[in-house]
Amino acid sequence: MEKTITVLPGDGIGPEVTEAAVKVLQAIAKRFNHTFNLQYGLIGGAAIDACENPLPQETINVCSKSDAILLGAVGGPKWDQNPSHLRPEKGLLAIRKHFGLYANIRPVKAIPALLEASPLKKEVAEAVDLVIVRELTGGLYFAEPRKKTNDYAVDTLVYTRSEIERIVDTAFQLARSRRGKLASVDKANVLDSSKLWREIVEEKKQGYPDVEVEHMLVDSTAMKLITKPDSFDVIVTENMFGDILSDEASVITGSLGMLPSASTREDGFGLYEPVHGSAPDIAGQNKANPAATILSTAMMLREAFQMETEAAAIEEAVFNVLNDGNFTSDLQIKGKRVLSTTEWTLKVIEELD
Amino acid sequence: MEKTITVLPGDGIGPEVTEAAVKVLQAIAKRFNHTFNLQYGLIGGAAIDACENPLPQETINVCSKSDAILLGAVGGPKWDQNPSHLRPEKGLLAIRKHFGLYANIRPVKAIPALLEASPLKKEVAEAVDLVIVRELTGGLYFAEPRKKTNDYAVDTLVYTRSEIERIVDTAFQLARSRRGKLASVDKANVLDSSKLWREIVEEKKQGYPDVEVEHMLVDSTAMKLITKPDSFDVIVTENMFGDILSDEASVITGSLGMLPSASTREDGFGLYEPVHGSAPDIAGQNKANPAATILSTAMMLREAFQMETEAAAIEEAVFNVLNDGNFTSDLQIKGKRVLSTTEWTLKVIEELD
Ligand SMILES: CC(C)[C@H](C(=O)O)[C@@H](O)C(=O)O
Ligand SMILES: CC(C)[C@H](C(=O)O)[C@@H](O)C(=O)O
Repeated sequence: MEKTITVLPGDGIGPEVTEAAVKVLQAIAKRFNHTFNLQYGLIGGAAIDACENPLPQETINVCSKSDAILLGAVGGPKWDQNPSHLRPEKGLLAIRKHFGLYANIRPVKAIPALLEASPLKKEVAEAVDLVIVRELTGGLYFAEPRKKTNDYAVDTLVYTRSEIERIVDTAFQLARSRRGKLASVDKANVLDSSKLWREIVEEKKQGYPDVEVEHMLVDSTAMKLITKPDSFDVIVTENMFGDILSDEASVITGSLGMLPSASTREDGFGLYEPVHGSAPDIAGQNKANPAATILSTAMMLREAFQMETEAAAIEEAVFNVLNDGNFTSDLQIKGKRVLSTTEWTLKVIEELD
Repeated sequence: MEKTITVLPGDGIGPEVTEAAVKVLQAIAKRFNHTFNLQYGLIGGAAIDACENPLPQETINVCSKSDAILLGAVGGPKWDQNPSHLRPEKGLLAIRKHFGLYANIRPVKAIPALLEASPLKKEVAEAVDLVIVRELTGGLYFAEPRKKTNDYAVDTLVYTRSEIERIVDTAFQLARSRRGKLASVDKANVLDSSKLWREIVEEKKQGYPDVEVEHMLVDSTAMKLITKPDSFDVIVTENMFGDILSDEASVITGSLGMLPSASTREDGFGLYEPVHGSAPDIAGQNKANPAATILSTAMMLREAFQMETEAAAIEEAVFNVLNDGNFTSDLQIKGKRVLSTTEWTLKVIEELD
């Protein structure tokens, strides 16, 4: 198969981790006889520096002419004092909105070799295997009116039926392909938008009799993600709740540096990126953990290109390298070998050869 | 001193835990020569059953003629299908709004005797000593317009300058009386209300040069509460973020059944209640842990009546009882004595006599 992938390295460790992922893609191309055409674009701080725009039109054009997008990370102290339209994260928000990438998918699975790095007790974290499905283009993030004066400020939380229906469908389908359990998270005891959300989940569940649905409040969910994270299979929620809960979930297994994500839409086109940020403090030092970005390319191969075998090969390679005791410096595992970004990536590639 | 306290037992285990707290108040009155006049009122499901109103006018009247309010808990499956104006939690939202109780204060401190019950590793949880200051009468909870049709729904997040200023002042003052560290939590990279919030914190900090302020994003805060909860002193945030983060924080030390809270306003008048809910599954079985409600009365004595010695006496009694190995059944501590609600309360009262 021939596929065109746009790589947006971004800021901080973004260039290093995307470079690692590109090497893995090349190894996959060789082994499975595919052609991956790689195109590069600017986003975030790098784009602000080059053309005063966190998402230049040129980047949109390049992405439009590709089958999937691989993103590193955006942001850093250099741009922290910028006015809000010149902030790196505006590039991220804009690319999601421009391409209608409404479904943010974040799997969190305990990795035995890494449990020691988890803040949770082993028995709480070891069986975690959940996916958060976050609505990504609606709610407080984008709705109007929004206004700020010296005396007051307003943001607006709007959801339309169709916005809720499509993300709820995504989550039901995912639950069906996994353990058949869906937790729909809202604040229906306070918010009108949550009441509509809950009604739609109730309607939709008729079409998925094989999925067991539970409605949960966002505050209790924030608790249960810590006390019983292994009780979840698929969690679906609106944009802001999803932002908070998915970050919370990302640290429970101690493997933040390992977590991939996808932001997609109906036709499967999507943006794949590590959950972690741009880590400016270690940028350019060949220290970053490239695993999350490499696993994001596995997600891309599976979800965007239906390359299940190839995706599984990458995942197996990554876990083999970890199980052999090879770690990057972000993971504090006693008595284990600490490799640089490029050394660690090479191990993965050797597994794939 | 003579003080009038309104007790609102509420639903589920509410009556049992408030009864326990009342016994402790009586012991304090005897030992320190105070008079506590107790008045009772209905709220939540109990009020809906009696007069189809989760916060009857009669309850408001009684509360108005008192120096402080002690609440048990509201809610239960019995009222879960009710229309939204006949839901128990509406009583809670209404009493907060009616009395302008804008500052919700929730301390979370690790209790060595209970760390075993924490989902977090001992070394992560043991030094936790933080307070969440949550704005309680603004934001998405109360602002207009709110609307729900079959096709879309709207909620509105409004904050005025004065609403933000007073809660930020509360938090700065609290930080000053503790370790002098304040984390102000917002989502200023997305929300206009958060931008105003951040500006006001920046202005206010000039008046508190002894307090070290850090701005944090709500998503990173949700992570850090798990990975480094002991790095926090005082956290201040808006209503919805506070709802989520304070529930998250409440489980990190394993002592949810021990956590008190206060909802107050400028003049010190306030409502004191345990952080835990009404636990309908164990209601009426003399099993509930009354510690959080008893510690809430200690907070009341300290904050509303300036009875520092009396408050400290209650806290010491509670910790002595725990350290002696006495627990209620909610706490899974190996090899420890399990007492009923009334037995455990009696131990506390013996300590106070
Ligand atoms: C950078 C920020 C705007 C973004 C968000 O809030 O969506 C980030 O936190 C994320 O979760 O991808
Ligand atoms: C019951 C509910 C409306 C309430 C809230 O969201 O404020 C509760 O969760 C709380 O935190 O006191």
